[in-house]
Amino acid sequence: MGRLVMKFGGTSVADIDRIRNVALHVKREVEAGNEVAVVVSAMAGRTDELVDLCRQASADYDRREYDSIVATGEQVTSGLLAIVLQDMGIKARSWTGWQVQVKTNSAASAARISEIDSERLADEMAAGQVCVIAGFQGVSPENRITTLGRGGSDTSAVALAAALEARCDIYTDVDGVYTTDPRIVKQAKKLSRISYEEMLEMASLGAKVLQTRSVELAMVYKVPLQVRSSFDPPNDIPVVPGNNFGPGTLVCDEELIVEQEVVSGIAYSRDEAKVTVRHVKDKPGISAAIFRPLADANISVDMIVQNVSPDGEFANVTFTVMVNDLDTAVSVLESNKEKIGFESLESAPNVTKVSIVGIGMRSHAGVAATMFDTLASHGINILAITTSEIKTSVLIDEDYTELALRSLHTVYDLDAA
Amino acid sequence: MGRLVMKFGGTSVADIDRIRNVALHVKREVEAGNEVAVVVSAMAGRTDELVDLCRQASADYDRREYDSIVATGEQVTSGLLAIVLQDMGIKARSWTGWQVQVKTNSAASAARISEIDSERLADEMAAGQVCVIAGFQGVSPENRITTLGRGGSDTSAVALAAALEARCDIYTDVDGVYTTDPRIVKQAKKLSRISYEEMLEMASLGAKVLQTRSVELAMVYKVPLQVRSSFDPPNDIPVVPGNNFGPGTLVCDEELIVEQEVVSGIAYSRDEAKVTVRHVKDKPGISAAIFRPLADANISVDMIVQNVSPDGEFANVTFTVMVNDLDTAVSVLESNKEKIGFESLESAPNVTKVSIVGIGMRSHAGVAATMFDTLASHGINILAITTSEIKTSVLIDEDYTELALRSLHTVYDLDAA
Repeated sequence: MGRLVMKFGGTSVADIDRIRNVALHVKREVEAGNEVAVVVSAMAGRTDELVDLCRQASADYDRREYDSIVATGEQVTSGLLAIVLQDMGIKARSWTGWQVQVKTNSAASAARISEIDSERLADEMAAGQVCVIAGFQGVSPENRITTLGRGGSDTSAVALAAALEARCDIYTDVDGVYTTDPRIVKQAKKLSRISYEEMLEMASLGAKVLQTRSVELAMVYKVPLQVRSSFDPPNDIPVVPGNNFGPGTLVCDEELIVEQEVVSGIAYSRDEAKVTVRHVKDKPGISAAIFRPLADANISVDMIVQNVSPDGEFANVTFTVMVNDLDTAVSVLESNKEKIGFESLESAPNVTKVSIVGIGMRSHAGVAATMFDTLASHGINILAITTSEIKTSVLIDEDYTELALRSLHTVYDLDAA
Repeated sequence: MGRLVMKFGGTSVADIDRIRNVALHVKREVEAGNEVAVVVSAMAGRTDELVDLCRQASADYDRREYDSIVATGEQVTSGLLAIVLQDMGIKARSWTGWQVQVKTNSAASAARISEIDSERLADEMAAGQVCVIAGFQGVSPENRITTLGRGGSDTSAVALAAALEARCDIYTDVDGVYTTDPRIVKQAKKLSRISYEEMLEMASLGAKVLQTRSVELAMVYKVPLQVRSSFDPPNDIPVVPGNNFGPGTLVCDEELIVEQEVVSGIAYSRDEAKVTVRHVKDKPGISAAIFRPLADANISVDMIVQNVSPDGEFANVTFTVMVNDLDTAVSVLESNKEKIGFESLESAPNVTKVSIVGIGMRSHAGVAATMFDTLASHGINILAITTSEIKTSVLIDEDYTELALRSLHTVYDLDAA
């Protein structure tokens, strides 16, 4: 049946009972004839405990030491899953990042994978061993333990699948990718397939099912990626002959999606904050004067809107930053007030970015216009707009989030029958 | 001032405050001009938690996976201590067993060190880096993580000191080696020096200050070993010029001990249990018939006494095993009852082995006789005796433990002035 990388997150391996459940999923795939590698996260809560110890040790801890400390979480889980699999009669062993040789650069806590020695793993898998790999970690050229940044286990899994030329099943606490957040819109539907490009937009726009980096990697290496739930009963899911894919959502090339909707999903993010710089002189270089100091302070700016006064002499510049960066952004601007020459600053943390995403938008006119009309007809004011080829995002007052999502979900025909 | 390996056990690194205290001890030695490596155990309790997870995963867990899981405890401590040292302005980094290359054989959970690549460490230490090394662990020829067995961090420290040609300070929760257990005998004195041979006997006879293997290793490689308390105030102890050794107990070559006592210390162990095999035929091969099946069941037998009946035809054989092995020993013998041909078995877990230890016993006659007299005069019955060149051990009823220790401590002039 081919090679398969299965990835299980922290809540799926939170205790030994859940690890047993994970092992049953693995067993099902082994018995279906697959060669299986498993990538695991730390048991839920353990990473936070370890981070807390680092912080207690020093507010300004060495990130290389942090990596060595935090990487132990995944190491423990991989050993425990190997033991449980063996207990079920399945040949298995654990592998740390350095044992596999998941080679990364030296960027502690934010390392990028450069190469994976997959030959040894491939041999072991061919010989019937389930390779249980500690996710989120690698080894630097200096032979130190590195981590890939939070959520990096998804990236580990996809990178391994790429190296092993395997497909990749990401098991999580939801059973797939939905048209929008089902906690807000009851009629949200699970998508059976979604293209890499769309998933990438959804992920970066706030849908927290998959990490953006892992989707990018899957897209580049054409790794078929399935999102499914580890809480599904592991033995009730028959493996359909000729179809390796189960009941989750498949993230794949757009050619593999037969019935393409115009809008596939609606994402939202409450992590944005709005800043307005009032009454600046509208002259060349003014944007640079505002945004250069923010860039120097390592603050990412997302949406930007500029309104020029009727006489063309002054402008108001509005933009969004991550809500965590808001205080820093304001103080950076205040300390450059004279240089920029603005009259006043306004900031608002209580805004939401709502986005419609769909590959069909490329070939259909009027999709964005429908969005604006719909919001207007519900009395929702649009504070800013950005677009790309396959998405349109608007910034609205946070209080209107649910109303916006529900009305857009209906107007784009996404409500479940 | 030379090279120094400092070792801190689990209670000394139980939380971040205690790790800070450890760092102050390290700082003192660095500021005195020493090149320092530090070996640390897991934070108190963590190893037990990890062992418990393994047991939950399977009653019959793979010891190689156990090693990979349990070794994370020391890895976390080494990282945390490195962070705390850096925070105090001391150059430091952590090293796992595989990073150092503490090479061991493949015996999972009971690995023996074969070689340590000390060159890299020596270079780093010479360049002013404190090397914080995760104790208890190494790496097998198959590149898997191994552990040295419980208490193995002492062994790690001594092996590193041997490889680095350094002296070794073992910090623990007691401030040295005492003539006997001060919790039982109030007059017990701290020894300023004790020979390797005596310490080895004391350790194997139940004095739990140092692990037997680490003392053996120190003796073979002539590593000067100091036992001292991590709870001493780290800054109040001046480093005496010309004397690298502080206020603990120095374990060293006997030539370095000027005033040699006849008896240096009195050890005891409650971990023994007594088995008597009654009424076996006293013929050649009977000992083998009894002890071979026990050896095959991996049970160590310590003291052996054989009493032959007046007619010389039958004998009772009494011996001791570790109390944990008692049930297995009895069932092994019962299942060989016909082959051995005994009448009945008796077993008693409530016995204590009391031992006097001293290099002076080699050259002084009558030392053991004094022991027997003293015990007899206090009405204590001796159940078995074993001797070596520098120790005499007796087995007595557990109820008499304290009385025996106190009376022997007095008769050999060990009571503190």
